[in-house]
Amino acid sequence: MWKTRAYVRLKEGVLDAQGRAVEQVLKQEGYDISDVRIGKTIEFVTETKMEQDILREMGSKLLFNPLIETIEFSEDFLP
Amino acid sequence: MWKTRAYVRLKEGVLDAQGRAVEQVLKQEGYDISDVRIGKTIEFVTETKMEQDILREMGSKLLFNPLIETIEFSEDFLP
Repeated sequence: MWKTRAYVRLKEGVLDAQGRAVEQVLKQEGYDISDVRIGKTIEFVTETKMEQDILREMGSKLLFNPLIETIEFSEDFLP
Repeated sequence: MWKTRAYVRLKEGVLDAQGRAVEQVLKQEGYDISDVRIGKTIEFVTETKMEQDILREMGSKLLFNPLIETIEFSEDFLP
């Protein structure tokens, strides 16, 4: 079995309203941080390793918006 | 400068309604996948590397709900 993780992030330059809100709260709490960006992970399990092109197709159809987001996959074997 | 990434996941056994919904759609589309779990990443930049205990405090105050979620941090140096 394989565990695939998809990491979805907003592209640089795309306004991250949720990140802005979190940043503001963290700063109010006294943390000296900047450039907060919120992303999403989608994890799932498959019997066999997924082909790169199937992953790419699945990603752009269902998991992310290529106009404003990027996606990265990592695949790990589950013993 | 340092980039910290926080990965927030629902604990095993906690119902992931969003994951269920994504799983159903992926299966309808013909993808043979299971155990879909949706998580969240929070990335931010700091001038200096953050201390582990500050991260832990910040995490449990603001970034995740320890009752139902787990959090993991990774820190990378930005040249």
